Amino acid sequence: MVGFSAEHCSVKRALDIVGEKWTFLVLREAFYGARRFEQFHERVGCARNILSDRLATLVGHEVLERVPYREPGQRERHEYRLTEKGRDLLTALVALMHWGDRWEGDEAGPTVEVLHRACGSPVEVVLRCSHDHEPLTAVDTVPRAGRGARQVPVSR
Amino acid sequence: MVGFSAEHCSVKRALDIVGEKWTFLVLREAFYGARRFEQFHERVGCARNILSDRLATLVGHEVLERVPYREPGQRERHEYRLTEKGRDLLTALVALMHWGDRWEGDEAGPTVEVLHRACGSPVEVVLRCSHDHEPLTAVDTVPRAGRGARQVPVSR
Repeated sequence: MVGFSAEHCSVKRALDIVGEKWTFLVLREAFYGARRFEQFHERVGCARNILSDRLATLVGHEVLERVPYREPGQRERHEYRLTEKGRDLLTALVALMHWGDRWEGDEAGPTVEVLHRACGSPVEVVLRCSHDHEPLTAVDTVPRAGRGARQVPVSR
Repeated sequence: MVGFSAEHCSVKRALDIVGEKWTFLVLREAFYGARRFEQFHERVGCARNILSDRLATLVGHEVLERVPYREPGQRERHEYRLTEKGRDLLTALVALMHWGDRWEGDEAGPTVEVLHRACGSPVEVVLRCSHDHEPLTAVDTVPRAGRGARQVPVSR
């Protein structure tokens, strides 16, 4: 059995950025249209200092970018917009959301649906083979060490 | 602009279970074939008491199940196997992994590839419209309150 060093893995790197609950919820609100500090604060429901910290983390990792704006008669402020790297997280976010809907959902139904903007149908996230494009489940898959793997000794 | 209460959302429920870094890494190792405590301990690289706690969390949420086994001449022990609910998390895990590979990856390449067992091609995770099945990106999507939504007042 091959072991993979946890320190060196893309899942851990992704979680180092978005694995913290408040950070992911800030990101979710960015997808739902929040841009300004007060919008995030009302929707995420965390303390202001935690929100400042999580926004800074996401800006530091280039998931959000901080863009100045000025309303008439007011001082310059900043809003937070998803970068390309940030927008590319939507697939993982929807995958988590749909898992939550299936296994931890309310009887009342899902709280949010993400729709195809052009046609209004719900989006779905599909795990599939890149060759024949058939949908897959976990039992159809097998992990293999990649080019960047560092192997570690493991017990059977 | 519609606001959705964070307390009531499937993403937060999913993250309450798997959002903690060590919990997700335990889960990852379960997908890679770990079943026994010592296997998890060697691969995840966390302290034993943290590992015990995270395994108990995953069993409590029915993501893993604890199954007794006995080797000749030894006392009964337990191993941890993915449930159907656990296996259904693979899509979210691979989505996070591929995002990490694209945006936080090593020049050396990915550390792990997940392959289609039957044909050996890499798997991929695709966000697509459930109606016309075209691949989508974030800009092609729009969120809508679902049946279970509780709306909250939000700033513009």
